[in-house]
This record gives sequence, C-alpha cells and structure tokens, in this order.
Amino acid sequence: MAPGFASPEQTFYALADLLAASVAAISGAQAARQQGLDLFGVYTVAYVTACTGGIFRDLAIGAMPPVGLADWRYLACAIVAGSVVIWGGALLDRLRNSVLVFDALGLGFYSVIGAQKALVYQANAGMAILLGVATAVGGGVARDVLLNRVPVIMQTEIYALAALVGASIQVFGELMGWSLFVTPWSAAAVAIAIRLLSLRYGWHLPTARPAAHHDRS
Amino acid sequence: MAPGFASPEQTFYALADLLAASVAAISGAQAARQQGLDLFGVYTVAYVTACTGGIFRDLAIGAMPPVGLADWRYLACAIVAGSVVIWGGALLDRLRNSVLVFDALGLGFYSVIGAQKALVYQANAGMAILLGVATAVGGGVARDVLLNRVPVIMQTEIYALAALVGASIQVFGELMGWSLFVTPWSAAAVAIAIRLLSLRYGWHLPTARPAAHHDRS
Amino acid sequence: MAPGFASPEQTFYALADLLAASVAAISGAQAARQQGLDLFGVYTVAYVTACTGGIFRDLAIGAMPPVGLADWRYLACAIVAGSVVIWGGALLDRLRNSVLVFDALGLGFYSVIGAQKALVYQANAGMAILLGVATAVGGGVARDVLLNRVPVIMQTEIYALAALVGASIQVFGELMGWSLFVTPWSAAAVAIAIRLLSLRYGWHLPTARPAAHHDRS
Repeated sequence: MAPGFASPEQTFYALADLLAASVAAISGAQAARQQGLDLFGVYTVAYVTACTGGIFRDLAIGAMPPVGLADWRYLACAIVAGSVVIWGGALLDRLRNSVLVFDALGLGFYSVIGAQKALVYQANAGMAILLGVATAVGGGVARDVLLNRVPVIMQTEIYALAALVGASIQVFGELMGWSLFVTPWSAAAVAIAIRLLSLRYGWHLPTARPAAHHDRS
Repeated sequence: MAPGFASPEQTFYALADLLAASVAAISGAQAARQQGLDLFGVYTVAYVTACTGGIFRDLAIGAMPPVGLADWRYLACAIVAGSVVIWGGALLDRLRNSVLVFDALGLGFYSVIGAQKALVYQANAGMAILLGVATAVGGGVARDVLLNRVPVIMQTEIYALAALVGASIQVFGELMGWSLFVTPWSAAAVAIAIRLLSLRYGWHLPTARPAAHHDRS
Repeated sequence: MAPGFASPEQTFYALADLLAASVAAISGAQAARQQGLDLFGVYTVAYVTACTGGIFRDLAIGAMPPVGLADWRYLACAIVAGSVVIWGGALLDRLRNSVLVFDALGLGFYSVIGAQKALVYQANAGMAILLGVATAVGGGVARDVLLNRVPVIMQTEIYALAALVGASIQVFGELMGWSLFVTPWSAAAVAIAIRLLSLRYGWHLPTARPAAHHDRS
C-alpha cells in the first residue's frame, strides 16, 4: 500500500480520520466552552485538539505536508464540531460527562489510525505503536496546556494505556494480515471500552507513590 | 518566486521577519523580567518567544533547516532585545502595557510573514492562513507555557482572531496579485489595529459559557 | 563523518545517547512517582523526558525518522529506568535530591550529544549549540508541562546556561579537531559540574526584576 494511492483501505482510514477529528474537536470545544472562552477560542481549541496529535505524527514520519494543516476538511470538521457545541451544548450537557465520552472516542479512533498511517509510511512496529499513542493523546495534551488544566496524563484513570492497547492490536493485526473488517474495528473498540470502563468503574493502575513524599516542586 | 532566490520581495520579507522577531523577543523578555527570571532566563524566553512559531511553520512546510535555528541573526535579535529590556526596562515600564504593545506588533507582522512564507513553499491558501496564525501565536503560547502563565488563548480580548484576519488579507492579496506596497502593510496594520483596539476598548467576542458550569478539571 | 556510517565515534555517541536517555528517564520517572502517578504514567513520563529533546533535534536537522521513536532501545531504556525507580525508588530517595542529580547528568550528556549530532547533519556552529541546549532542556520542559510543575526555566539556579556551556565546548572542540578522548568528556563534565555546583552552593545569575512589579498574568 503506497502513500498517495487511494485504495479502498486508504479511503476507509481517511474517513475514519475525519470522524476521529470530529469527536476530538467536540471534546476540545466542550472543554473550552466550560471554561468560558469566547466563540473564536472554542473553535481554536476544537481545531487544536483535533489536529495536534496527527500533525506531530506526520512530521515524525515525513508525511509532508501534515494533513491536518493541508486538508481543509479537518478545519471544516473542527468548525462544525465547534458550532454543534456552541449552539447545541445545552443538549450535550444533559449527557453526563459527555466531554469524557467524546474524548474516549477520539482516543480509540486516533490510536488505530495513527498506528496505521505510520505503518503505511514504513515505520517499524514499535514506532507505529508509539505514534498511535502520540496521535491519540497529543490533542488532549495540547487542549489541556492551552486551557491551563491539569494534563490528562495526571488523571488517575487509565488513559494512555488504552491507546497503547488499541495501537498494539492494530499493528499486530496488520502484520498478521487480518481483514479490514476486523482489525481497526476491534482495535478501536477495545481501546474505547478500556477507557470508558475504567471511567465507569474507577479502574486504575497501582500508583508508585513513595512512602514518604519528597515533592520538589 | 522560488525559495532560495533573493528577489526584492524576499529581501523585504526577510527583513520584516527580523523586525517581527525583535518585537516578539522584547515582549518575551519583558514578561520574563517581570516574573523575576535571571539574565540568562530573560534571553532564553526572548529567543523562544521570537522563534517558536517560525520553527513550527518551517517544519510544517519543509523549509529546512528552520531559519530561527540556522540563521544567527534571529539569535542576535533576541540578544539585542533582551539587553534592551534588561538595561532599558525601566523606561519601557513607563509605557503602560508595553508588553502588550510589543506582543501585538509581533502578532501582526508574524501573521503576514508566516502566511507569505507558507505560500512561497507551495502551501494552499487554507494552510497558509493556518500557518500565519500559528507563526503569530506560537511564540506567545511557548512564552506563557515556559513562564507558567495563563496562556494567551485564555485571554478575553481578541487575539488569535486578529492574526487570522491579518493572514487572510495577506493570502487574499497575494492571490489577487496586489502590490508589495499594499498587501503586507495593510494586512499587518489591520491585524495590529484589531488587537490594540480590542485591548483599548475591551472589545471581545461573545462567550459560549453554559448556563450551568460543569468544569471537569 | 557521514550519517549512517558506524565509525567508532558514532558508536561512542550512540552509546552515550542511550546513557543520557537512561538518566533522563530516571529523573522523569522519579518526578512522576513523587507526584503519585500510576505505573503506566511513570513509564510514560520516563519515556517523554528521555526522548522529547532528541525528537525535536532530529526533526530540526532532518534526521528522519527521529531516533527516539524508531530505535526500540530508547523505549527499552525508559522502561528499565522506570522499573528501577518503581521498585528501587526507596533506595534512590535516600540519596537526597536524586532527581536533581540524574537531571543534571542528562543535561550534561544531552547538551554534548545534541550539538554533536547537529554538526554531523551539517548544521552550522550556532545551530548546533542551540540544538545542544534544546536536546538537553527539552525533556525536562516536557516533563514539567505534563506534570503541571513549575517549568525548569523558572528555577533560580543555573540550568540552561550549563547546557549552553557544554554544547559550546563540544562544538568548539569539534571545530578545533580535538580528540574523542577530550572533547565530549570535558564538555559534559563542565556542564554537569556547573549545574551541580550551582545547586550545591546556590549559585545564580543576577535577576532582571524591575523595581516595581507589573505582573500581567
């Protein structure tokens, strides 16, 4: 599968990427709206949340120019998602923790797509998994830095680990030659399920906190 | 206009870029000085504020190596700007809000230059506008992250929107074939005017704050 | 010395890079453990602290793909370092300020290796020094942003200046043709010594604080 050749697989992943951008943009727009940013700020955070992880991935694999910057559809997804949140936000607010749900959907889709695109650009399996995780968590980290929130990495629930599992299943399935009808769907579903179940049931990994606390900061 | 050919236009934009780097460096140095950083910290923040946006732009358009790293004149501008602030800072302090004024000048110039350089490197119009904004706001975001300040994006006045207007005028003017005596000047002037007037008169966009506040952080 | 040719010098620098990654990963893992992150969070921060500076350097000099992503040994170093901190952290805690010591070792090694790799990839002397500093401080900045700590740049002791001295000695020695047995060792030793002595004896540069404080944030 060569870059630039629009096989059915590539069309599938391109559409999935826009879907992932849209749900990530919704989570960014909701977080910005909840902190009282103005309308332009909501669109800005939506776009940054949707595209930061993918821009970093594209720079790292040499997929130039980065698709989040060069393809107008990503900006369009961010604008649509921002508008949905601005004018339909009251509805979304009734869904408890809807920021977290959209964030989890973006996390799962992006871990799969990020790993897959890295494989297409000849990354080895380890790099593909790392870039799957980076694609998945990059947007949320950028969103939290811009909004001066506690970064997602500090949260107690399982977050980046879910992306790691999703990206690993995707890379394993691709190397095994699994079907397009199996690999990405199962990888994304497992990642999303791990994230949502860890939120719902308070799953968390053991901490490594020292007995005596020597915080330096 | 090919990269590497020093046409009068390119000379003009190269000089404007150094001017933008200098005013951005002054805003960074002032912010660092006001937070009590040591002399080396002031120079560091001055350089980072001046060059972060442009380095990101150059990576994204493949203009290698990034000019802010490879061209010693950018570092020289940051050192001169830092020295002006360190030894002439008391004078600048008499000008009320001089950090904001220098920041606005950098914002306007960089939005124009960033968009223009992206066009020269074959970016499409949308990508050129996005990179104009990124060039303009990147330094300020990096400055605020390094200094642990509330990021510029959180401010209530119009900020990134001013850069968006400046970059859009520049790209539109270039596509229309407007003269070098018209396009960059008017684009930068409009961006700077929007930013300064929004500060002076408290212009701001409507917020998208929800009725009930469900802050997650 | 061409990229890709494994001369004894390149083998030496490749091994030194893994050593620097390991000590940087220990400092990151310790900081994460002290803030009570879970086990996966400790590994994540260890890896990010070890590799962020080098990934930025590799993007800036066009050394694709970035070695911290493509070479599995960097991830392995981060996992080993994280495990040492998780299961041997109580021992490390007895060494007062061991985060600071490992951070200083990483700072010194990375300033030398970052500058050297930039020279190998045809960067000019100024860019090599800047990238030496960026390689050295990038991981610590990323660690502190992820952990929501006060960034290293805000600390009163000498930090980035030590990296600047180390990178400058390395570049000067390379241009002078000094021996592999002299240049990197003396450069790293001077940088580490400056950092540790500034911590031990409270050395600091004069600040540029204004008489009247006009903090904007």
